[in-house]
Amino acid sequence: MPTPADPDFDDPLLGPWLKGYPTAAEPLRRSQLKRQGWCVLDGQLPLPLAVLKQSALTHNLAWMQAFAAERGLALAPHGKTTMSPQLFRRQLDAGAWGITFASVFQLRLGVLAGVQRALIANQVQQAADLAGLARLLAQTAGLRVAFLVDSVAQLRQIEAWRATQRQAPVFEVLLELGVAGGRTGVRDHADALALARALRSSPAVRLVGVECYEGLGVTGDSAADAASSHALMDRLQTLALAADAEGLFEDDEVIVSAGGSALFDLVAARMKPALSRPVRGLLRSGCYVTHDHGHYRRLVHTLAQRCGCADELQPALEVWTSVQSVPEPGLALLTGGRRDLSFDIELPRPLALARAGQVHTLPDDGRWRIRGLNDQHAHLRFDDVSDLQPQVGDLVALGISHPCTTFDKWHWMPVVDDDYRVLDAVTMHF
Amino acid sequence: MPTPADPDFDDPLLGPWLKGYPTAAEPLRRSQLKRQGWCVLDGQLPLPLAVLKQSALTHNLAWMQAFAAERGLALAPHGKTTMSPQLFRRQLDAGAWGITFASVFQLRLGVLAGVQRALIANQVQQAADLAGLARLLAQTAGLRVAFLVDSVAQLRQIEAWRATQRQAPVFEVLLELGVAGGRTGVRDHADALALARALRSSPAVRLVGVECYEGLGVTGDSAADAASSHALMDRLQTLALAADAEGLFEDDEVIVSAGGSALFDLVAARMKPALSRPVRGLLRSGCYVTHDHGHYRRLVHTLAQRCGCADELQPALEVWTSVQSVPEPGLALLTGGRRDLSFDIELPRPLALARAGQVHTLPDDGRWRIRGLNDQHAHLRFDDVSDLQPQVGDLVALGISHPCTTFDKWHWMPVVDDDYRVLDAVTMHF
Repeated sequence: MPTPADPDFDDPLLGPWLKGYPTAAEPLRRSQLKRQGWCVLDGQLPLPLAVLKQSALTHNLAWMQAFAAERGLALAPHGKTTMSPQLFRRQLDAGAWGITFASVFQLRLGVLAGVQRALIANQVQQAADLAGLARLLAQTAGLRVAFLVDSVAQLRQIEAWRATQRQAPVFEVLLELGVAGGRTGVRDHADALALARALRSSPAVRLVGVECYEGLGVTGDSAADAASSHALMDRLQTLALAADAEGLFEDDEVIVSAGGSALFDLVAARMKPALSRPVRGLLRSGCYVTHDHGHYRRLVHTLAQRCGCADELQPALEVWTSVQSVPEPGLALLTGGRRDLSFDIELPRPLALARAGQVHTLPDDGRWRIRGLNDQHAHLRFDDVSDLQPQVGDLVALGISHPCTTFDKWHWMPVVDDDYRVLDAVTMHF
Repeated sequence: MPTPADPDFDDPLLGPWLKGYPTAAEPLRRSQLKRQGWCVLDGQLPLPLAVLKQSALTHNLAWMQAFAAERGLALAPHGKTTMSPQLFRRQLDAGAWGITFASVFQLRLGVLAGVQRALIANQVQQAADLAGLARLLAQTAGLRVAFLVDSVAQLRQIEAWRATQRQAPVFEVLLELGVAGGRTGVRDHADALALARALRSSPAVRLVGVECYEGLGVTGDSAADAASSHALMDRLQTLALAADAEGLFEDDEVIVSAGGSALFDLVAARMKPALSRPVRGLLRSGCYVTHDHGHYRRLVHTLAQRCGCADELQPALEVWTSVQSVPEPGLALLTGGRRDLSFDIELPRPLALARAGQVHTLPDDGRWRIRGLNDQHAHLRFDDVSDLQPQVGDLVALGISHPCTTFDKWHWMPVVDDDYRVLDAVTMHF
């Protein structure tokens, strides 16, 4: 975590207080890392260790930026995925308009990392959060932040807080539409338009656009996913047109934002309604930066086929573990568990085994499989007929499903080349 | 995380870089916290926020210490649960013999926090970890650490690493027994005894005891749990007697360790085999310190009935959230999700609703229930017939199941009185 004593995100200090950093090694600045010659395969780094592959990261950053640019859209990738200032910087350098966050706490990290334009794709209404946002806006020249409103009750909370303040900013807000049975967001057009009017007439906020999230009920079936996301995007367009016709938007351009990491092609085609003023279409996908070996790999494969994309995103995130025990035939225990890996969508997948520096790709046919996780262990089952049998001391790479819930288990990740030599590092600040 | 710039665990610096600390507030030392007059119920702290109840913590520390003492056992509570130096200190001050860890990385935190006796209840075999452990032992006068060995292959890894070192300690080890289909640990008595002989004859290690973990297949059915844990403890006793008879233990006392957080009464009765030298029975339960509102509450209730205990452990950990949206009848969205709460055993349970500082206990009959979590949201379903309806801005307290996977989502937790006024804080360093 960045403290007043070490706020340097460009060249953070790394050391043995970070899980995965060698306990016996001296602390190093990020800029000193490459010259150490560390390699994940040679035993210098204690496992488990989550690593990012430089080649895949670089590919994904360019791929997504091109995807948005080709459709006349801008990117505000969701920063909650990584909470990593160095990755925010790479996203901005690649051309992102800004970064999206889920809370004022997350926004604070972005602002410290140099983010100038941000969405909070969430309701803000608590006094402590409104005070925090007001302070960030007051202290940061040029900072622009818009957050979501989905009820008059929330607007009244904001107004009540503002009435207690001597000075408070006028908050920029997006009106959120949602789906019955889903999450946040107004369910009905008439209610949404009534809320837009209430926002327009409130001195506490400025309505600068509309927002929705299409990814909650994703099925992977293109027809079903297209039907549900088109229906939502049609409602968003209808609302934007109606609010525009009544002059309810209060900025020179109107933000229209949607886009998780699974169906962003489906919403991308419907993010530019013909309004009386320019529209800024903002995609918020966050998981693209590292992609994964599970849930998003399957969904983005479908997406790429749907779009006729020449190539796809590449999985950049792997968690390396060590075989600590092979206590019975067909079972190996790996040093890595619920504290180290995503398990909220599905269990990790064994990708490769390394012995004496040699990497052996594992079959993706179920013969090697993770059957369970404890806090600190993974249970690897392997068939007796496999040619390769895990031994104590072997290294096993695991592919994950859902990057968000692996990132939040680490404070740093080395960035490695395709031979797993450490080139660089990023830090995470959840 | 403790950095070289702020290693003060007694009086750590807290500030807005910590999730749950007010973004608009100045950093404070732990010792300055109480005089701020903060209260979770009054909106000064942004939610979600995990809090610890002082009264329950104090009760649990004393309860567990008395439980062990009454049975002639010592405590080495598992530090992986909390990874909190201030809680380690309270456990040691309450009378714990030492602290248990799952890795050398975790041990390092304990050593910095003043732990002098430790178990690593896990295999250590990687070069980076052996080097880290050797360094901690060399740098820390009086530090005693024993880790687990469950295979000759692991012993050979340790010997191979040692052969590359000019100087290396003789590592103290416990021989681990395990259960077929379970996790680590030797499955068979003859193999275990052969390993004990190999350990005795190796110059790399000293065999100082035996260990097992009975909690993997816990069912909650007393008869079934007693049968499986008695069978395992009988094997552990048989092994200890055989190794003792052959003179394989290499210290003045023999450590016999078992005990997770669910069945510790069942193992406690069988941890003192009659050996030729004194036996140190070490219980490793970790979750008792905060207990929970789910899995462990049910199991420890059964345990307390089995023991005829006059009272039980008390849940000390709650996660407070805010209602950010009530977008349709019967559904409220809370500010707290997979990034803030345990969900690996079961979903959290709504405990209380607070409005305008008044706390209303919620019915525990399913009328209020968490039906799903996203990364940053909890979906609260409530029946229309409830007298109390959640509104935007209400606070909702959630009880969790499995403390380990809530602790690892926070860097600090306030310690509160029964009215949720902030008295103190602890920090976590995963």
